[in-house]
Amino acid sequence: MPSEQTMKAAMQAYIDAFNSGSALAVTNLYSPEATVEDPVGSPALRGREAILAFYTGSIATGAKLTLDAPIRGSHSNSAAMAFSARIGALTVRVIDVMTFDESGRFTSMKAYFAPGDMLQG
Amino acid sequence: MPSEQTMKAAMQAYIDAFNSGSALAVTNLYSPEATVEDPVGSPALRGREAILAFYTGSIATGAKLTLDAPIRGSHSNSAAMAFSARIGALTVRVIDVMTFDESGRFTSMKAYFAPGDMLQG
Repeated sequence: MPSEQTMKAAMQAYIDAFNSGSALAVTNLYSPEATVEDPVGSPALRGREAILAFYTGSIATGAKLTLDAPIRGSHSNSAAMAFSARIGALTVRVIDVMTFDESGRFTSMKAYFAPGDMLQG
Repeated sequence: MPSEQTMKAAMQAYIDAFNSGSALAVTNLYSPEATVEDPVGSPALRGREAILAFYTGSIATGAKLTLDAPIRGSHSNSAAMAFSARIGALTVRVIDVMTFDESGRFTSMKAYFAPGDMLQG
C-alpha cells in the first residue's frame, strides 16, 4: 500500500496536471486498467484510451480546479478531496475519491456531484 | 432513488444529530443492516447495535462536527461531505461518503481520514 503522503501527493498532482492543461499528464497518474466514474451514477470509463479522451474533453472546457479543503487520506489504499471546478461562470462542487495501486497510481476515481452542485457564479 | 435534496438533508441531519449528542438520533438515520467503515481501512461495523455503540463512544469524546464545504450529491444513490471533527485541541479532517436506500436512510458510510489528518489545534 502506498503511504498516505504518496497518495496525497498524487491527488495534488492530479489538480496541478489538470490545471496545466495536460490530459496526458492527468492520464499518466492512472494505472492502465483504471476506471473513472464521473459523475457517480454514470457508466464507468475503463482504460487508458477512454480516460485520455475524457480528460482531453474536460480540459478543453477551460475548467480549472481549486481545493476546497485539505486532501484526506484513509487507513487503506484510498484518499478523497473536495474541490470546485470553475468553467467560465459555472462552478461545480465535487468530491473525488481515488483508490491506488502499489506504485501510487489511481486504480479508480469516483466524482461525487449532483445537478444542484452546479452553480452559476 | 431518493432525491438529491433528500440525501443532502440526511447528511446535514447527521451532522446536527451528532452535535446534539444523541447517538440514537444518529443511528436512526441508518437502515437496520447498514455498514460503517470509520476510518476506511478498518473492519466495517454492521447493524443497528454496532452502529449505536460506535456513535455512543464517538459522541462521548465530546467531538463536534463542522462542514468544511457544502455537501455534494451524485447522479446515483450516494452523497459525500468534507468536515472537521473537533475533539478538545484535536482536529480530524474527514470526508464521509454515504449510500442510501429508497427511503433516504444510509445503507453505508465510509469515513476517509489518515493519521496525518489528525492535527493538534
